[in-house]
Amino acid sequence: MEKIINGKALALQYQDDIINFIKEREATNLRLPAISLIQVGNDGGSNYYRESVKKLCEKLKITVKECIYEENIEEKVFLDSVKAVDEDINVDGILMLMPLPKHIDSNKAIDQISQGKDIDGLTDNNIGKFYSGKKAFIPCTAKAVLAILESLPIELEGKNVVVLGRSNVVGKPVSNLLIGKNATVTTCHSKTENLKEVCKRADILVAAIGKPKFIGNEYVKEGAIVIDVGTTYYEGKLTGDVNFDEVSELASFITPVPGGVGALTTTMLLSSLCEACKNNV
Amino acid sequence: MEKIINGKALALQYQDDIINFIKEREATNLRLPAISLIQVGNDGGSNYYRESVKKLCEKLKITVKECIYEENIEEKVFLDSVKAVDEDINVDGILMLMPLPKHIDSNKAIDQISQGKDIDGLTDNNIGKFYSGKKAFIPCTAKAVLAILESLPIELEGKNVVVLGRSNVVGKPVSNLLIGKNATVTTCHSKTENLKEVCKRADILVAAIGKPKFIGNEYVKEGAIVIDVGTTYYEGKLTGDVNFDEVSELASFITPVPGGVGALTTTMLLSSLCEACKNNV
Repeated sequence: MEKIINGKALALQYQDDIINFIKEREATNLRLPAISLIQVGNDGGSNYYRESVKKLCEKLKITVKECIYEENIEEKVFLDSVKAVDEDINVDGILMLMPLPKHIDSNKAIDQISQGKDIDGLTDNNIGKFYSGKKAFIPCTAKAVLAILESLPIELEGKNVVVLGRSNVVGKPVSNLLIGKNATVTTCHSKTENLKEVCKRADILVAAIGKPKFIGNEYVKEGAIVIDVGTTYYEGKLTGDVNFDEVSELASFITPVPGGVGALTTTMLLSSLCEACKNNV
Repeated sequence: MEKIINGKALALQYQDDIINFIKEREATNLRLPAISLIQVGNDGGSNYYRESVKKLCEKLKITVKECIYEENIEEKVFLDSVKAVDEDINVDGILMLMPLPKHIDSNKAIDQISQGKDIDGLTDNNIGKFYSGKKAFIPCTAKAVLAILESLPIELEGKNVVVLGRSNVVGKPVSNLLIGKNATVTTCHSKTENLKEVCKRADILVAAIGKPKFIGNEYVKEGAIVIDVGTTYYEGKLTGDVNFDEVSELASFITPVPGGVGALTTTMLLSSLCEACKNNV
């Protein structure tokens, strides 16, 4: 197996599962999965993400319903619209593109999404289920990290994992997923002391802090697996948290940026959509 | 400050806050807080816990509504009863004593409790809020561990914490609480390799595995703070996870069993009840 993990190739494998799922539904005359993309305003990152989801949906024959609202939409009107989208029985899952404008309370907006359509794992209910070890939708980046680790010829059980970052959408859910896989997990962050020393003990290092090229050789044990979740624009290029040229010498497996974790997230989202579709009777 | 942490004394401090809260409500002619204790059958542990809650409620002038059902109550009848208790505007918080008999789905039972009355932090909604960093009720044992650590003359920020155990009611919430306090947290469990080595690096060691006297000197760094959440009956005595006689020599602070964490839990539950009462307009 290649040392440099190929996120795109792994994405294609997961896409095959989606294609098969859809073929089966077609063969039995079932409705194809449908996703609703909700966006307010014209944020560049949101536009980019929405377009990439649309493109993949087109390829996979997934129905897309775009709900794009003016930046200055009233909160109440927006919340009611989200509620209506959620109640549409022909919508299986909802992706709400963040950030929302400041005059809209994102918690309230998320609360309009029912648990079964919350394919990005944003609702309190899904989050609670996830941390209690029940079946739940989880943020697709965390799901992508696990998919990558599970594609490697290693056991996660007993591994010493260091997760750098404690965000609700990456650091914390990745930690919880890996505890569930019987790894020993240390969660680090900006206040961690002796960070190099802690990271250097890791069999698996997951970096999700958004600091370009922060992780150099001095943070990495020889033979460690390094998963780079960082995506920052730096000197005009999408750049990870890991100094790839340096660390790839030491690591046994490493994800590149781009082409690593990021290459999988949209596919993971649509995998969750298929799950939601299956349950949306 | 004494090396051996006095859970009872700390409980009395928190009880003073509760007493003041109740006095203020009396002074303004507001209804006193009321807790509902729900139990099915005659489990010894549940009886003991219920009696200790009742005793403390009596001392603090908290109204207790006991709802005790026959072991063989039909699931549907029980769920409807819990729902009715939850809808009672004169009940501020609910403690559902576990375990429920096997023919009752405890998830369904918990789902009958609304978030505002879920003072023990069992509902998916509360759990989700908690792990997202929002205000939420949390299991009272985890709350007790934090109260003890916050009573010590130390900073939690940057501390290397090892939590031994990953249960939904202790290990995981304690880990999340301490990450929230800027500690670096390693979550260990039965599959952790080199456990002694990992524990020996801890500035703060929280043991919650239910293995009597498991943690001896070889797991503890000199000067570490050791919090023992274990409560197992062993040779006829309530025994912690820590070999107290041995470890108390090394530790800078240590909780005894009994008289440590356990001495605080019921008080923490009733603190949460007062919170719930404040919000129960």
